[in-house]
Amino acid sequence: MTIDPERVPTEHEHPAARRRAPSVVVVNTGDGKGKSTAAFGVVIRAVARDWPVAVVQFLKSGEWHVGEEAVCRDRLGVDWWAIGEGFTWDSQDLSRDQAVAREAWSHARAVITAGHHRLVVLDEVTYPLNWGWIDTAEVLETIRGRPAAVNVVCTGRDAPPALVELADTVTEMRKVKHAYDTGVIAKKGIDY
Amino acid sequence: MTIDPERVPTEHEHPAARRRAPSVVVVNTGDGKGKSTAAFGVVIRAVARDWPVAVVQFLKSGEWHVGEEAVCRDRLGVDWWAIGEGFTWDSQDLSRDQAVAREAWSHARAVITAGHHRLVVLDEVTYPLNWGWIDTAEVLETIRGRPAAVNVVCTGRDAPPALVELADTVTEMRKVKHAYDTGVIAKKGIDY
Repeated sequence: MTIDPERVPTEHEHPAARRRAPSVVVVNTGDGKGKSTAAFGVVIRAVARDWPVAVVQFLKSGEWHVGEEAVCRDRLGVDWWAIGEGFTWDSQDLSRDQAVAREAWSHARAVITAGHHRLVVLDEVTYPLNWGWIDTAEVLETIRGRPAAVNVVCTGRDAPPALVELADTVTEMRKVKHAYDTGVIAKKGIDY
Repeated sequence: MTIDPERVPTEHEHPAARRRAPSVVVVNTGDGKGKSTAAFGVVIRAVARDWPVAVVQFLKSGEWHVGEEAVCRDRLGVDWWAIGEGFTWDSQDLSRDQAVAREAWSHARAVITAGHHRLVVLDEVTYPLNWGWIDTAEVLETIRGRPAAVNVVCTGRDAPPALVELADTVTEMRKVKHAYDTGVIAKKGIDY
């Protein structure tokens, strides 16, 4: 017998579970590590199935995710969207970060709606949602109305309840302990 | 200002955190999704730093992780160890799964001790530990005595307390909800 404690039973093994969803919405939330990291793990799975994959970064984050971006782009063929260094915006009323988040959403909405990518990762989308920088109702409506084959993975702390409600699978990454608590600084290759 | 809610502060930003660990032990546990998935996300980071990476699968698991294995091997250059189809064992006292776990540990110990790989993922190692198939004291001793530059990521439910104690960073992936609960079967490209 093959033992597989994490596997969701397949139709054959578990007749009660018999609906094959055309696509799913996954949310990785909580205060622990692994939210974006697990999303990038799903990217590997999607690439293994030859799916076109898009990642949209909602926060401009310096060195953070730069390694993942390079590997996902160059070795995995992922369409990765992150704001460029030269990004400028007109409004006096928006901070750069707000403007980045709005640009990211504008791009994400176009990608989701186009339907070409079978997996779209909205990386750290919960922050601009919670800060009111992008419109939650519009984001939810776009995800709900997405083309049938488009899977969406959302990451970030404090996922809004309406997003949790909409999602098929929600995992809370809970910090049990972190190296940082004992004075260890963030580690290249592990933390970023 | 760059906003980065998930980032562990660096030495520069947070003078209280000033120890640069030569390597860390990370444990992803809990009943939710994302334990192995996040480990594969860390693989992407490690590859981005040009680290040699090894993954050791402790359970023989059919189609599970086959896609990840192919992508990690072929596109990311990961040394991936999984038991082959033709695996045989002599003992009348061991099931095939037990024998697989012992072979996996034998290989993992050699890899960790050799010190060539900067990241070693012990995928689903908690199960054979908890089932008494491999020796917890020996596993802990090997991890504790590892070469300084070898980072270790362990995955699986119910991480033994001694492993949690030893680890630098422990995250519990907690299921908030799962598509399966509403009758959706496991999905290629997302769940495996």
